[in-house]
Amino acid sequence: MPIAAPHQRPPPQQDGSDRIVIQQSDVASEQIRQVLSQLVDNSPADWILLHLAMGTMKMGGHRYGAFLDAATTAAKLAIYASFIEQGENIRKTGFLYHVEPKRVKAIVQEIQTAVADGQSLKVLNAKEPYYLIALPFLWQEEFPCDPQTSRVRIAGLTPSERKTIEDGLPPNAPMARILDQVEFNELLEKLHYLSQEELPVAQRMSFSDALMQHIKFRLLHSGTVIQVDSPLVDIPLFALVSESYAPKDERERAFAMLDDVARYFSILQAWVRSEEGAMRGIEVFDIDLNRRQEALQELDVLLRTWADKYHQEDGHPMVLQFAAGTREYD
Amino acid sequence: MPIAAPHQRPPPQQDGSDRIVIQQSDVASEQIRQVLSQLVDNSPADWILLHLAMGTMKMGGHRYGAFLDAATTAAKLAIYASFIEQGENIRKTGFLYHVEPKRVKAIVQEIQTAVADGQSLKVLNAKEPYYLIALPFLWQEEFPCDPQTSRVRIAGLTPSERKTIEDGLPPNAPMARILDQVEFNELLEKLHYLSQEELPVAQRMSFSDALMQHIKFRLLHSGTVIQVDSPLVDIPLFALVSESYAPKDERERAFAMLDDVARYFSILQAWVRSEEGAMRGIEVFDIDLNRRQEALQELDVLLRTWADKYHQEDGHPMVLQFAAGTREYD
Repeated sequence: MPIAAPHQRPPPQQDGSDRIVIQQSDVASEQIRQVLSQLVDNSPADWILLHLAMGTMKMGGHRYGAFLDAATTAAKLAIYASFIEQGENIRKTGFLYHVEPKRVKAIVQEIQTAVADGQSLKVLNAKEPYYLIALPFLWQEEFPCDPQTSRVRIAGLTPSERKTIEDGLPPNAPMARILDQVEFNELLEKLHYLSQEELPVAQRMSFSDALMQHIKFRLLHSGTVIQVDSPLVDIPLFALVSESYAPKDERERAFAMLDDVARYFSILQAWVRSEEGAMRGIEVFDIDLNRRQEALQELDVLLRTWADKYHQEDGHPMVLQFAAGTREYD
Repeated sequence: MPIAAPHQRPPPQQDGSDRIVIQQSDVASEQIRQVLSQLVDNSPADWILLHLAMGTMKMGGHRYGAFLDAATTAAKLAIYASFIEQGENIRKTGFLYHVEPKRVKAIVQEIQTAVADGQSLKVLNAKEPYYLIALPFLWQEEFPCDPQTSRVRIAGLTPSERKTIEDGLPPNAPMARILDQVEFNELLEKLHYLSQEELPVAQRMSFSDALMQHIKFRLLHSGTVIQVDSPLVDIPLFALVSESYAPKDERERAFAMLDDVARYFSILQAWVRSEEGAMRGIEVFDIDLNRRQEALQELDVLLRTWADKYHQEDGHPMVLQFAAGTREYD
């Protein structure tokens, strides 16, 4: 029985041959670290971009094109902000950013149109690409199943063969039909068109084999769907194994990280503008590793006690963020 | 005398007509905030990109094109990292990022070539564009001046007229000649070519009028150079008023912000990987505004005392970063 045992996620397969290696080896990790350190050097802005690219694409599953579009949108918004500050002077804004005046004009118009029409620009505006979030719902809606009927409807199988395939699924797999390749592909196509309806026409993407492969790969990679290769049938089957897209462990932490960094950035922006009540600080120190755990626990308690001491209902809303770890620079 | 009084930076002028408005009005600031909130919504990755675009371009003076190049480089490095992790499989890497295999191949080759040749990729690798850092040195080297000779060498002026112009400079202005438009432009061109020599041939930019205007605007905008419009001469003059490019006030804080965020991001990456000794936390609370100042001072002392308590010479290097301020979300 090649179906994975419960709780043991199989390496998702593509065409039965390529296996996605989810755990990177230490060698690969060290190789990546060296290349990045050599190329990025010690420029903080580049490290922020790199951490962000890793967080959104490598961990989060956003497309390469989506990340580049979002970066371009951010750059356009910075230009727009200067345009307003410079008294809506296109020429001065162009000089500041080294952009041709007609390009500045087009950028300003694009943003003004989006604001007026309530449209969105090309951003990474979901925490996760739509297909990871929406697929479990659409699958259960389109291919529901109840405890009395088998999840497997493939022709030519006996009831006991169907049960054998079904028993190989993880115990928490939702009550939804197991699909063959054609059904699964059609579901992905439907999912794609539904997601596009919410976008402005200019931002819609056409569906292609390449996009379908990308979506399928990400669904398998994230463990939302598993491929079932049974000797009882000669075609690959696909099973939904997650009720909803629930990031966990490292992925969940990666999302929390982006939330933390965005808020931290926002507090520091207030500090840059010298707003009252905004504060930032760094403590650099060396520690006896035997006392590190004790120190971090004490820190956690210290800060909670401090916040409790000053908390007052209906007061001014405040947030304190902190992070501690190994110092990797001098 | 239209030369600025000491310590009072004049609004830099462009062609004597356009004035750069350095202080944004509250109305503009509110207008920008509204547009950004509407368009960016609550996606943390987009806010990080936006804060970064503002920090590097609007505050830091990097070109629009430089920011987009750096974002593309970061995305390519994320692809490269996945390529290594996926056992150097181009097809799988392409599926994960929705990029054509031949494009993945080109990206991988570009990075491998850069590593092998010790070249750099297109990044924002100086905290500040080269011309803000290098100009004061080149100017003083090319047009030195000693206390016995006037900074002004314009023909047709009496010694006392020269002194009148010179006396209008800020007291700490370096001993360097005041230049006319042609000399200043030639200096910028020389600065440009010197900076390009350090770059790989493929990354060099040609010098253009538009680039010259951009550089001139940024030098005036940053207060490194001032334009001197004297009724004694009928041409604009340019004076170096800063010994070295020393960002101050809001600009200095903007650099510190990027450093902080990059390090904070790095600590959180360790936390995402569940590395021992990495910790992050948030305290959400409301405060009586009359006690806010007291609370923040107490926090500062608490954390310093904590770090001092656990500091041990030759111990494991640690860093704690924190920021506190108004909570802008629920």
